[in-house]
Amino acid sequence: MKLIRPSVVALHPYIPGEQLHVEGLIKLNTNENPYPPSPRVDEVVRSLSVESLRLYPDPLATELRAVIADLHRCKVENVFVGNGSDETLALCTRAFVPPNGAVASFDPSYSLYPVLSAIADAPMKLLPLADDFSWTEPPADVAPLFFLTTPNAPTGTMYPREKVEAFCKTFQGVVVLDEAYADFAPDNFMDVALSLPNVLVSRTLSKSYSLAGIRLGYAVGPTPLIEALNKIRDSYNVNAPTQRIGAAALRDQTWMRTNAQKIIATRENTADALRVRGWNVFPSATNFLFARPLAASAADLMQHLRANKILVRHFSAPRINDYLRITIGSDEQMQAFLAAI
Amino acid sequence: MKLIRPSVVALHPYIPGEQLHVEGLIKLNTNENPYPPSPRVDEVVRSLSVESLRLYPDPLATELRAVIADLHRCKVENVFVGNGSDETLALCTRAFVPPNGAVASFDPSYSLYPVLSAIADAPMKLLPLADDFSWTEPPADVAPLFFLTTPNAPTGTMYPREKVEAFCKTFQGVVVLDEAYADFAPDNFMDVALSLPNVLVSRTLSKSYSLAGIRLGYAVGPTPLIEALNKIRDSYNVNAPTQRIGAAALRDQTWMRTNAQKIIATRENTADALRVRGWNVFPSATNFLFARPLAASAADLMQHLRANKILVRHFSAPRINDYLRITIGSDEQMQAFLAAI
Repeated sequence: MKLIRPSVVALHPYIPGEQLHVEGLIKLNTNENPYPPSPRVDEVVRSLSVESLRLYPDPLATELRAVIADLHRCKVENVFVGNGSDETLALCTRAFVPPNGAVASFDPSYSLYPVLSAIADAPMKLLPLADDFSWTEPPADVAPLFFLTTPNAPTGTMYPREKVEAFCKTFQGVVVLDEAYADFAPDNFMDVALSLPNVLVSRTLSKSYSLAGIRLGYAVGPTPLIEALNKIRDSYNVNAPTQRIGAAALRDQTWMRTNAQKIIATRENTADALRVRGWNVFPSATNFLFARPLAASAADLMQHLRANKILVRHFSAPRINDYLRITIGSDEQMQAFLAAI
Repeated sequence: MKLIRPSVVALHPYIPGEQLHVEGLIKLNTNENPYPPSPRVDEVVRSLSVESLRLYPDPLATELRAVIADLHRCKVENVFVGNGSDETLALCTRAFVPPNGAVASFDPSYSLYPVLSAIADAPMKLLPLADDFSWTEPPADVAPLFFLTTPNAPTGTMYPREKVEAFCKTFQGVVVLDEAYADFAPDNFMDVALSLPNVLVSRTLSKSYSLAGIRLGYAVGPTPLIEALNKIRDSYNVNAPTQRIGAAALRDQTWMRTNAQKIIATRENTADALRVRGWNVFPSATNFLFARPLAASAADLMQHLRANKILVRHFSAPRINDYLRITIGSDEQMQAFLAAI
């Protein structure tokens, strides 16, 4: 008897961006936030009762979900919380895809989706975006589950609202609007998830709230879909410190908004500076830029930057291997980046 | 098109023990530890850099896994870490069960296993233990995956070493030895997992290390099985504070052992006191007792205790509904429990 499931043996796992911890490193490769989390997070950590860690967390994450419901003006029953949005997305492949069903997404978009579909033993249908990575209409019955990254990653671009809305209304399966970067964008689709029976929005505290280390993601949408995710998650999937830290961070919208605005300003300045240098830079609605260098190849430039202790992300997939994905850091970090290229 | 996978619609989710937070409550229902975690955990929490939470955790949990490898005298490649042992167990159903394969376990044992197999859309084969809940030999080809709780829960009993060893050697699939309670037992099977190609041991920091709140479990065993789990987990499944807190707690074996010894002493005293009252008490190798009351029904007695702010666990499954599962708390808590019955 083979011990390991054949599809797992064949699986190519997702490769996350490098998490080097080197003195003086400028880390522009995994879309982290250059600014610290809210001072309220500090208060929570300083007041954390270590004695209380001996108890299981609240399996319903009642307080945290109430804060999220309050933020998005919905009910607690419309809110799912997960161990990072990675968990939300993985659970969607198990909750909404029947046996022999497929998973669909645009290409290029988040490279985790094909890995999640492979883990769920579901075929992946990648629908190529147009040559300029703009919207192409997917068939309404292409798959029972569609992951739609909005704003898109790694391109950073926003799809037109009317396209997204019309697609959500006609699509026959579940649409997961992966809004990891929505706090850096001029628009989002929370209203769509709260008005249609087949649409979820997925959010994360890793980017705009500067909390990648605590692993907290959430989904908002119709109660039956949220209930399905809750049925198949681990009972205690979000640990006790993360529940309290997350609630504190979400309550401080001013802090998050202020940092997001700083990052947006730095992003626009950096994009201008790159365009002056002749780079092809996509308009970004995220905390990163997707850009094609003028003189050197993207792969060579990534290595050059790495040698100078600056990490950026390069994807060796066919249509995007001429580009770099550059996380927006502080103004000082971006000056160092511009000086190094 | 149905939006939710039919098996998920049909699913009866796992019901965790109540997590009430009521003033003066004596919580003997979810096998938590009455003593606080190691003072080294306090040091870690006090020194936690909130600023560092903006970064992703180490996706390989390098330091934490090195501490575990050191503890069990194996290689880092033999160690998997998960978001609680719930995650370890769930991943096993996805890594080691081929399409149309089944999951097996004894009955009674941990009631989560049938839920996990249902989530994985795998049939569950429950093999009844003998009338006195002692070992019965499972067929060597009963399923590709066998969850073996040792010491068993909710009965608290230890199986003979020669039975477990012989079964692991002849079983044709993967055996997961779920040793959640091993630190309260006179023996464990870590040596078996480190010598056979098809055996994993699963451990948790929720019980003996007083850390249910941080969600940390781990598995030890042959590299190919560990690699399979690592391929299908979320990249950042164990968050940054948990990695550091877990490593600190595991380094303080003296603290864990001292608390485990106190709990074992209280357990034996409580068992004696119940037997004096005519209860049928199973010999326990865990931090709980499985016992049948003399005068009242188990269900009625649980309600009576609840009215007196003492929570114990009652399972309404056929063969075990005459019993209560009573977590061992402090001596004072057990005196209050004995006074209330």
